[in-house]
Amino acid sequence: MAGSPRRTAGRRLQLPLLCLLLQGATAILFAVFVRYNHETDAALWHWHNHSNADNEFYFRYPSFQDVHTMIFVGFGFLMVFLQRYGFSSVGFTFLSAAFALQWSTLVQGFFHSFHGGHIHVGVERMINADFCAGAVLISFGAVLGKTGPAQLLLMALLEVVLFGLNEFVLLSLLGVKDAGGSMTIHAFGAYFGLALSRVLYRPQLEKSKHRQGSVYHSDLFAMIGTIFLWIFWPSFNSAPTTLGDGQHPSALNTYYSLTASTLSTFALSALVGRDGRLDMVHIQNAALAGGVVVGTSAEMMLTPFGALAAGFLAGTVSTLGYKFFTPILESKLKVQDTCGVHNLHGMAGVLGALLGVLVAGLATHEAYGDGLESVFPFLAKGQRSATSQAMHQLFGLFVPLIFASVGGSLGGLLLRLPFLDSPPDSQCYEDQVYWEVPGEHEDLAQGPLRAEELETRA
Amino acid sequence: MAGSPRRTAGRRLQLPLLCLLLQGATAILFAVFVRYNHETDAALWHWHNHSNADNEFYFRYPSFQDVHTMIFVGFGFLMVFLQRYGFSSVGFTFLSAAFALQWSTLVQGFFHSFHGGHIHVGVERMINADFCAGAVLISFGAVLGKTGPAQLLLMALLEVVLFGLNEFVLLSLLGVKDAGGSMTIHAFGAYFGLALSRVLYRPQLEKSKHRQGSVYHSDLFAMIGTIFLWIFWPSFNSAPTTLGDGQHPSALNTYYSLTASTLSTFALSALVGRDGRLDMVHIQNAALAGGVVVGTSAEMMLTPFGALAAGFLAGTVSTLGYKFFTPILESKLKVQDTCGVHNLHGMAGVLGALLGVLVAGLATHEAYGDGLESVFPFLAKGQRSATSQAMHQLFGLFVPLIFASVGGSLGGLLLRLPFLDSPPDSQCYEDQVYWEVPGEHEDLAQGPLRAEELETRA
Amino acid sequence: MAGSPRRTAGRRLQLPLLCLLLQGATAILFAVFVRYNHETDAALWHWHNHSNADNEFYFRYPSFQDVHTMIFVGFGFLMVFLQRYGFSSVGFTFLSAAFALQWSTLVQGFFHSFHGGHIHVGVERMINADFCAGAVLISFGAVLGKTGPAQLLLMALLEVVLFGLNEFVLLSLLGVKDAGGSMTIHAFGAYFGLALSRVLYRPQLEKSKHRQGSVYHSDLFAMIGTIFLWIFWPSFNSAPTTLGDGQHPSALNTYYSLTASTLSTFALSALVGRDGRLDMVHIQNAALAGGVVVGTSAEMMLTPFGALAAGFLAGTVSTLGYKFFTPILESKLKVQDTCGVHNLHGMAGVLGALLGVLVAGLATHEAYGDGLESVFPFLAKGQRSATSQAMHQLFGLFVPLIFASVGGSLGGLLLRLPFLDSPPDSQCYEDQVYWEVPGEHEDLAQGPLRAEELETRA
Repeated sequence: MAGSPRRTAGRRLQLPLLCLLLQGATAILFAVFVRYNHETDAALWHWHNHSNADNEFYFRYPSFQDVHTMIFVGFGFLMVFLQRYGFSSVGFTFLSAAFALQWSTLVQGFFHSFHGGHIHVGVERMINADFCAGAVLISFGAVLGKTGPAQLLLMALLEVVLFGLNEFVLLSLLGVKDAGGSMTIHAFGAYFGLALSRVLYRPQLEKSKHRQGSVYHSDLFAMIGTIFLWIFWPSFNSAPTTLGDGQHPSALNTYYSLTASTLSTFALSALVGRDGRLDMVHIQNAALAGGVVVGTSAEMMLTPFGALAAGFLAGTVSTLGYKFFTPILESKLKVQDTCGVHNLHGMAGVLGALLGVLVAGLATHEAYGDGLESVFPFLAKGQRSATSQAMHQLFGLFVPLIFASVGGSLGGLLLRLPFLDSPPDSQCYEDQVYWEVPGEHEDLAQGPLRAEELETRA
Repeated sequence: MAGSPRRTAGRRLQLPLLCLLLQGATAILFAVFVRYNHETDAALWHWHNHSNADNEFYFRYPSFQDVHTMIFVGFGFLMVFLQRYGFSSVGFTFLSAAFALQWSTLVQGFFHSFHGGHIHVGVERMINADFCAGAVLISFGAVLGKTGPAQLLLMALLEVVLFGLNEFVLLSLLGVKDAGGSMTIHAFGAYFGLALSRVLYRPQLEKSKHRQGSVYHSDLFAMIGTIFLWIFWPSFNSAPTTLGDGQHPSALNTYYSLTASTLSTFALSALVGRDGRLDMVHIQNAALAGGVVVGTSAEMMLTPFGALAAGFLAGTVSTLGYKFFTPILESKLKVQDTCGVHNLHGMAGVLGALLGVLVAGLATHEAYGDGLESVFPFLAKGQRSATSQAMHQLFGLFVPLIFASVGGSLGGLLLRLPFLDSPPDSQCYEDQVYWEVPGEHEDLAQGPLRAEELETRA
Repeated sequence: MAGSPRRTAGRRLQLPLLCLLLQGATAILFAVFVRYNHETDAALWHWHNHSNADNEFYFRYPSFQDVHTMIFVGFGFLMVFLQRYGFSSVGFTFLSAAFALQWSTLVQGFFHSFHGGHIHVGVERMINADFCAGAVLISFGAVLGKTGPAQLLLMALLEVVLFGLNEFVLLSLLGVKDAGGSMTIHAFGAYFGLALSRVLYRPQLEKSKHRQGSVYHSDLFAMIGTIFLWIFWPSFNSAPTTLGDGQHPSALNTYYSLTASTLSTFALSALVGRDGRLDMVHIQNAALAGGVVVGTSAEMMLTPFGALAAGFLAGTVSTLGYKFFTPILESKLKVQDTCGVHNLHGMAGVLGALLGVLVAGLATHEAYGDGLESVFPFLAKGQRSATSQAMHQLFGLFVPLIFASVGGSLGGLLLRLPFLDSPPDSQCYEDQVYWEVPGEHEDLAQGPLRAEELETRA
């Protein structure tokens, strides 16, 4: 379907114009609304006369940096597994997450830090902006290889708004706890992406099938992403929790949960593999399910055993999902899920929400002592029983599922607008559509330097 | 030696069954024994009524994350240098370290944090569990490419117990100082692996020799491991030391020692190289010897000059070891040491122990002031002279050497059990034995997109 | 130009002898001059009787580790983009930065921490040593592929001295503010390298042109460098600032500036690219310009909007520089700038200095409150007006430009000494001149294991 030159030029200009437009808009909104908060502003900080060590920066910045690494290195490289889509995987992650950080500062700031006509920012806003970017990247995983960068920016534009709205309803209106985002980040991001992918269903995707797999080195690059996600996940789940007693158990629970999901992923991958062989796709993804599954409950008194059990279950379910459910998802439900986000973020996110229901329902004053105030403030104030909190957690799960399904479907319709630049079915999973791609090893055919060449060195 | 179908199926099931068995066992032990400590438990923490900033989490968690990065990214990618063993290097590191974290939480916890019938865990246990995993990975380096994943899990099962026992005898019973583990981690891990490798000696390993080297890209992946180990080693040596005055000099000494081992490694590598060329194996490994050699003394008043001298010596000895000693180790002593752990962890670990003897022997009340209490408590209390402490340090060196040699030999006998799945001599250093391996660059033969293909984009 | 055997041997020995000589010299100087500071020394720390949490280590070490990652992983891998120069890029980064850390500890220590005949070191010295190494690596970027390791060590020997002198004049004598080093690190490092590259101009460099580009995988390795630089730049600009209110806004401003330079880089790269395609060189480099451009002003009350605007401008200028200015630089000005450091560090550094002039000129007592003392001490004490501080900032910009141009030219003359080992024109950008390079994928020609081979596994 070769278009007229004019349409072609129009398509070429979509990405630059959209970048400039979005950047201009957020810059204006920043100028009008965004201000330093009282821990970041020189005058306000000194006016309050704190000691330096009290600045929230020192409590949260190291965790922020770990989260920041997960978003850009972790997600970016995890998606490099495709043989010819490495530039796009890491590059479009970079672009769409950078935009999401700005845009979600505005959207989340409006919901959570809007006082006196201004949004006040500091390290906590930075962490939450990165969290929102994480949800956008999870959705990106579902449509990886089948969307252009302008489409991805539009997806982020919509998704960030719905993320902020969903989070506000869930956490602020319903009083649901979800520090590490099993519901708000993982389930929301996954089902948003899956709904969107359903609308963008390509019956002729077969034409690009030869590019859909990995090659040896692309799988190693992807393991960089996996390992950085895995090691820093304890920081992810603990970064936004209460100082002191909140962050410590959140990190510890996540740490143990991930070890268990790793063991169960290796076990299940070998069990269902041909001749008992391990599958890199399982290791790269399902081993991370332990981080997702304790996203809601990591800050609770889950117990170290509970963390192991949860991680084990999540790794098992996720691995089986890759093996048995992903093919059905495509063939029966017409959802093409490139990275299998349903297995890692979708199912493990829902499991994590249910685990949160259970652990919240078991909360007692004895188990939490004065710490109850920070984990379950409604219980501490006597406004809710543990069962009531559990019911809120359970009911809350439907909020992100609804926001994600409806929002993702709307997003899909938006991205199907015919004038948007999208790769044709035969050019999916191919960097060359959007990038100048150098040749591969062109020089190596020449072999090692010849002796006479090296002689000239002397 | 083609086996019967039944044996084949049995071998295929070894890894999944062992993973499930080990995970089940540690989960039960966690349920019975492992509890949050008083800094992690919500009720206990608030009962003590500390300020948030006092929580040990804020003093140790950033260092923990650096150590965690070293174990999974550092060791994992350092071993990717083999051309056809990248999946196994990073994957089996992932698996065996994940198991070691759980298992050593139990073993080390039993020795160091067992009160009232329970093991109490928090960030300090997490750091120590990662340290133990480090020792297991050092041993893995000696047998890399010649063992299957089920064998590696059994090795970890045994080694973690001996690591905990050795550490208890050395640090708790003998009062030896070894914060960064020159003895307990590096020398122990190296000689355990070497003894094990000796028992597993393969006279026919020649059959896999063509896979034993690196290729251009695998060496670059390995440098990811090297550099992450190098930059975070100051955190490794300082992570478990006393808060305040313990962590600061430990990090600083390690920082300078590593710069010196880097300079001496480049110098020696070029000096002994063909035509003055540098050898990547030396750079990838010996440049790290500066971290190993100050493992015992980094927390002591080693002085910045002492750190440089120690690092210089370690880099020199380690590089010369790779060049001259590794070949002898195989040909004369029948120890096949894939990663050369003897050069990096073995010799530099022993040197580090001896440096600890020297620096402990020079300790004075003037040099340490009231800081003597945290570095040398027996000296501070007047129960030992500096010379006596030095003698304890010297005598202590034999403890890990004995534990490692005997334990590694036993481990070798265990791993030789004939029913265990082990790669045949002709299939060593080959991912395809245990992994589904994708083709290499299959798509690239097609060359760049043809013009008519790209036209369809318009 | 085959030399006599004796000259050849002499050249081979240059690197080892220079390493040993430099290491010996710094070790002696360390022994004479370098001592622990009062936060690192056991006796001094306890004598002052602080609480552990007061130790500067806890305020700066996490940021230090991020900076350390940027220097060794960030710069090292960013330069791996060349197809046959990966070993040298990451290896010579490793070597020259390791030496620079030692040497700048002495030089900067002499200017800033010299009391009672001794240089006192602690975490702040470590951060500053890493900063100096950053400048050296920026200069390395200009001459990448055209210099041998001995030449690079000599360059570092000279540049570190000038860096220290320049920084002392600028910050201490003129009272100019430049926490994140727009002037002292980026502009200085870039123009030092460019002046040096001008003197080393190679008219016959065309002979190595076929090795000057990237290949697919080398661009992915380079993105590892880019992303780690990008995520940790907030720590770079905040690491040396005042505790509390200094570090928090510095990190936040940098964070937002980088998101904007990323969006503008993608926009401009697509706009000027063939058929609207993105160019990896732009993404790898220009997206980082947002970090450089707020190097001077990040600690000031730049406002979040100011950060976005600055980042946007820097990304735009830098991308256009790569597209239009780099070719002119080589053809007209005979400056061969391998990594385009002029676009990323040179122009963005100068812009950053000018932005500092503007923001300093707008400083008021109202905006900074009591925080004025830490950001603009001369204003707080009433010794300078805001306009006067701005004039100092503007005048100050010429100091690094002069130091860099003169020093870089001298450095070029030094490196042209005819006996120094330098790659011939036809061997530039080639690892094999200095490294043992393994073959590429030699084993892969064998294809997957044959069925009968795998059978033996059973």
